[in-house]
Amino acid sequence: MSYRIDLNCDLGESFGHYHLGNDQQVLQYVTSANIACGFHGGDPSVMKRTVAICVENGVAIGVHPGLPDLVGFGRRTMSVSADEVHDMVVYQIGALLGFALAEGAVLHHVKPHGALYNMAAKDRTVADAIARAVQDVDRNLVLFGLSGSQLIEAGKAAGLTTASEVFADRTYQPDGSLTPRDQAGALITDVSEAVTQVLKMVKEQTVRTVGGGEIQIVADTVCLHGDGAHAMELAQMLRQTLTAEGIQCLAG
Amino acid sequence: MSYRIDLNCDLGESFGHYHLGNDQQVLQYVTSANIACGFHGGDPSVMKRTVAICVENGVAIGVHPGLPDLVGFGRRTMSVSADEVHDMVVYQIGALLGFALAEGAVLHHVKPHGALYNMAAKDRTVADAIARAVQDVDRNLVLFGLSGSQLIEAGKAAGLTTASEVFADRTYQPDGSLTPRDQAGALITDVSEAVTQVLKMVKEQTVRTVGGGEIQIVADTVCLHGDGAHAMELAQMLRQTLTAEGIQCLAG
Amino acid sequence: MSYRIDLNCDLGESFGHYHLGNDQQVLQYVTSANIACGFHGGDPSVMKRTVAICVENGVAIGVHPGLPDLVGFGRRTMSVSADEVHDMVVYQIGALLGFALAEGAVLHHVKPHGALYNMAAKDRTVADAIARAVQDVDRNLVLFGLSGSQLIEAGKAAGLTTASEVFADRTYQPDGSLTPRDQAGALITDVSEAVTQVLKMVKEQTVRTVGGGEIQIVADTVCLHGDGAHAMELAQMLRQTLTAEGIQCLAG
Amino acid sequence: MSYRIDLNCDLGESFGHYHLGNDQQVLQYVTSANIACGFHGGDPSVMKRTVAICVENGVAIGVHPGLPDLVGFGRRTMSVSADEVHDMVVYQIGALLGFALAEGAVLHHVKPHGALYNMAAKDRTVADAIARAVQDVDRNLVLFGLSGSQLIEAGKAAGLTTASEVFADRTYQPDGSLTPRDQAGALITDVSEAVTQVLKMVKEQTVRTVGGGEIQIVADTVCLHGDGAHAMELAQMLRQTLTAEGIQCLAG
Repeated sequence: MSYRIDLNCDLGESFGHYHLGNDQQVLQYVTSANIACGFHGGDPSVMKRTVAICVENGVAIGVHPGLPDLVGFGRRTMSVSADEVHDMVVYQIGALLGFALAEGAVLHHVKPHGALYNMAAKDRTVADAIARAVQDVDRNLVLFGLSGSQLIEAGKAAGLTTASEVFADRTYQPDGSLTPRDQAGALITDVSEAVTQVLKMVKEQTVRTVGGGEIQIVADTVCLHGDGAHAMELAQMLRQTLTAEGIQCLAG
Repeated sequence: MSYRIDLNCDLGESFGHYHLGNDQQVLQYVTSANIACGFHGGDPSVMKRTVAICVENGVAIGVHPGLPDLVGFGRRTMSVSADEVHDMVVYQIGALLGFALAEGAVLHHVKPHGALYNMAAKDRTVADAIARAVQDVDRNLVLFGLSGSQLIEAGKAAGLTTASEVFADRTYQPDGSLTPRDQAGALITDVSEAVTQVLKMVKEQTVRTVGGGEIQIVADTVCLHGDGAHAMELAQMLRQTLTAEGIQCLAG
Repeated sequence: MSYRIDLNCDLGESFGHYHLGNDQQVLQYVTSANIACGFHGGDPSVMKRTVAICVENGVAIGVHPGLPDLVGFGRRTMSVSADEVHDMVVYQIGALLGFALAEGAVLHHVKPHGALYNMAAKDRTVADAIARAVQDVDRNLVLFGLSGSQLIEAGKAAGLTTASEVFADRTYQPDGSLTPRDQAGALITDVSEAVTQVLKMVKEQTVRTVGGGEIQIVADTVCLHGDGAHAMELAQMLRQTLTAEGIQCLAG
Repeated sequence: MSYRIDLNCDLGESFGHYHLGNDQQVLQYVTSANIACGFHGGDPSVMKRTVAICVENGVAIGVHPGLPDLVGFGRRTMSVSADEVHDMVVYQIGALLGFALAEGAVLHHVKPHGALYNMAAKDRTVADAIARAVQDVDRNLVLFGLSGSQLIEAGKAAGLTTASEVFADRTYQPDGSLTPRDQAGALITDVSEAVTQVLKMVKEQTVRTVGGGEIQIVADTVCLHGDGAHAMELAQMLRQTLTAEGIQCLAG
């Protein structure tokens, strides 16, 4: 039996004079990138460079739309209407499409950022608005969402291809949600433990929960991070182990 | 002999809670619209609505990229690099393209806004950067620029279709430039005089200058305005007169 | 027995090229102004002009801090931390203080804007953060909040002078809260009815509720609006009636 | 004979999630800090923390107003009017004043940032607008400007105390201006050479120029940097050497 998984990472989050992330380095390990579009991070010149290095590295290019909250890095929930969500996602897909066209590349997927991702996981209205935006601009784009989330449901209902996202370094609750970051045991800091969790999710489509049980999970893509030595070590070891195990690393 | 002219107008300059311009009204008279893309005016929801009403009215949809200066409405010259200009134009074309795709419409042209338009008229580096951005995203887009400007030259050099823009209500200098707004006699306030100037430009490809002489001018598109009673009166009378004279009003 | 009431209005909400409100006109009728500080509306030049016309008209100058959400006009709830609220309020008080000092004027009060006002009415953490910011910059500033709100409680707990705000053109629920705008009967559209409601609140410190009952209310300041013919008519008639009734109109 | 010099550094340039500079470290070596106010860098929470650490370290607190160009870090010249300059400087002084009051500290000086600093060095209209803003808010604030610049002239003409700024790691032209960064030999990369230049400027009030000659210079304050290992080494060695030479390091 053959397995396949996509490894994704947020990229292009620098802004003007401000630098963020080790984009060049993490590109060696991932198969798809979520590129910030100027609302929570990123700017036109950063976007251009980021699309270019994705093309150079053969990494699939994804849109990473966020809430219009630069100072909060798109991490603060906002009470936005469904139309506002739809329109801000259309705008950001379009903006990145401009750079993809300029580089002779194609867009591969859309993954909402930060608070928008979390809102879309639980709030079907937000999820539907995002799915509708993707559908409106290009129905061939893959919609990335938290495994088991409303966003995945909304994407399927809209007839989109979806990719269920799992996390290597986060623990799971019995109901399939991530343990909130402010709770003890939310993060898996041991790299080999994180790698083991991913292998299990890919091969068995299950994950152990904080309670000790085991639940089913759909694992189409794993979220990696590009900032910090620890994140880079995890990315590297995960990619090596997956390859060694004969699991194909490929954007869906 | 048959004549043809495009009538263009800036549209979608409202922003959030702030309303600007009589977009619905001026759409009756123009054949192409320049839609703000969020840098100097406009926001995602305004862009969506503006593209939709252009489609409804059969008006050609143009990108109106501006400098990133919302508080200055893109009217303040900035020392931006050629790459910054290129990237901000690619971004804004893309953003509007998102809404065009969502509405099943196509983009027709690109006309820089405010200070960017003026910079591109005189500075070949800026002009080339804009032409390159258009070329990079979609070489079928028509590049609008001041008649006789560096931007028109840059567009031609890049192999783009260009549209030379003239003004109904501005007077011209012997060198073909517009009389600066802060000089006496810069504006033509009499509506029939403005209409007469356009007729002459379309039929004879000449314009009278402030010195009393006459110069050659290329008139592919006329710039109209959507704010104020006077602007609306000029738009209406110009459209009526052109039609009565058998001149075809059509986006190139 | 003598009565006193303050009439306040939001002012200086224009931004750059965008104009909002009839500031000059409503200044004839109010005794205090809440001036936007650039986060949800307003810009440095608008603030300067607005402080100047308040001085000219002898109207008390208040700070009107909002959430950092220009495109949403500060009306969208955001999940901001207590420290973020404190710091954004300190910043905005300071910014307006700059213009007050430049015009030889003094600041009189602080009234949060839009979503921040509503959040502070119900969420004691937000309310305390605002009260602490006022206290930190200038403990002589009066804190304006919805009558009966957490913000008034927080202000009192911090030892600040508070002003309980009532609305002329909104109806009240039996628990003292405003009827939400999306419910029928939320607005009082009849001007004389609105004036009557204010007179009752000032003289009897009671208000009729939508259920038909009557509740106690503290009325230190009435919120008026500066946009639209109807708002202006209400402002004018309210000021005239209060004066005719011998009620002193004065900022606390 | 006793000498005195102020050592200043830009501080608080981080923004939201974006970190910039080694503020804590450089604070050991400087005597005054120029704190960004949210236009080119900085945000309310960064400003609060930065004022607090300046108080802790006994470093004089200065306002560092910039152009409203976050993505360009305030380094791009803009064609702003004198009134716009005045109002944006008043706003930014006020905003920082809010945090100074909250921390029980006083503001010491104003030093324009980036393009605004350079514009004010050569353009008397801009310089006068800045001086007027300082005068309007608090005439006790010291105005920092390039030694020999229009800004120093404007400050003196306005009756303000000025501080003439010199650079340790930049070379000088025969006319007293800095060698532009894009020219060879603009930077002094050798730390001890930079220290020697400062000592000469402080003790002899002269500086060697790139041509080999020597010109007079007024050195009230030296500009240091807080980013990078090299900058930190220069700051440390300069402070040590000045102390060893018996030169008092003190904000004016």
